[in-house]
Amino acid sequence: MPVVHVNLWKGQTEENIRIIIKNITKVFVDLGIPTSAVEVIIHEIPRTHWGIGGEQSSEKIKE
Amino acid sequence: MPVVHVNLWKGQTEENIRIIIKNITKVFVDLGIPTSAVEVIIHEIPRTHWGIGGEQSSEKIKE
Amino acid sequence: MPVVHVNLWKGQTEENIRIIIKNITKVFVDLGIPTSAVEVIIHEIPRTHWGIGGEQSSEKIKE
Amino acid sequence: MPVVHVNLWKGQTEENIRIIIKNITKVFVDLGIPTSAVEVIIHEIPRTHWGIGGEQSSEKIKE
Amino acid sequence: MPVVHVNLWKGQTEENIRIIIKNITKVFVDLGIPTSAVEVIIHEIPRTHWGIGGEQSSEKIKE
Amino acid sequence: MPVVHVNLWKGQTEENIRIIIKNITKVFVDLGIPTSAVEVIIHEIPRTHWGIGGEQSSEKIKE
Repeated sequence: MPVVHVNLWKGQTEENIRIIIKNITKVFVDLGIPTSAVEVIIHEIPRTHWGIGGEQSSEKIKE
Repeated sequence: MPVVHVNLWKGQTEENIRIIIKNITKVFVDLGIPTSAVEVIIHEIPRTHWGIGGEQSSEKIKE
Repeated sequence: MPVVHVNLWKGQTEENIRIIIKNITKVFVDLGIPTSAVEVIIHEIPRTHWGIGGEQSSEKIKE
Repeated sequence: MPVVHVNLWKGQTEENIRIIIKNITKVFVDLGIPTSAVEVIIHEIPRTHWGIGGEQSSEKIKE
Repeated sequence: MPVVHVNLWKGQTEENIRIIIKNITKVFVDLGIPTSAVEVIIHEIPRTHWGIGGEQSSEKIKE
Repeated sequence: MPVVHVNLWKGQTEENIRIIIKNITKVFVDLGIPTSAVEVIIHEIPRTHWGIGGEQSSEKIKE
């Protein structure tokens, strides 16, 4: 506890993945939760598979 | 708001992905929610990783 | 983008919920993502419904 | 297949829940998927527990 | 690792919740994963909020 | 009903995937739920994308 699922567009750098895990964990550690208890699971989603406003995000970028 | 996660078997056509995003968004727009507020995230799952009735879906298809 | 689902034990203070939302959002803003694009959804789960090591967390606390 | 998880603000009418289930199912039926195969699971989230732009949605409404 | 999310109809007995956590954990322990590493999170969903075949499960039961 | 999402590290054998689906389904069948009603969806997550204790699991293994 806690378990955090992060959904992001595909194509993140390894460095960003590392930072997201480290900093989200810190959010909970700052509230008194033990570091070892925090799990962060990152799901990378292709922009074609992420719709915003009824359109694929991959299309929005082309515009 | 809302955030919709769709889990589907892997191997959808680009066209189907586009239609799913467009039409699920419309479900909420028809209820008065602004188009721009709707997010649809599609997770494609290999049939080997989707169990129905205790069996991999990939096995069911072979039968 | 991104959409973050946080699963936590039930019984968080309003203040902690506020801080979690604010600080997880900041993790992404620090990576250059616009503040308005970040959604954080918090699911509070009763300890009876959260198993760790095969036991309900509610039992672990009694021990 | 498919399994759809819908996350929405708490306080939906029974009628809206009914319509969301019916119409999301139709999106897949229109693509040739059998009606009986579609599962739609709706998670209602209190506005205090849904952050957009770093703030609780409940606060945004007060503004 | 692993993290398991179970979605079930609301109204489970405490005993069933206990058994589900214990037995799902055992599935992974039997594969060589340490007991302490397994997390099982149970989400109870009202039957009104769970659609199968385009209808609320609560309606199916009435039939 | 039920719908079970399993999150696991990437790199499972086909045989383990098969066993996980079969045995998690059995947990519910033993409680009186019909076999055909159980869906198990397995999400394999790269170790770089799974944080425990603020670090990528891929780093923990190197240590």
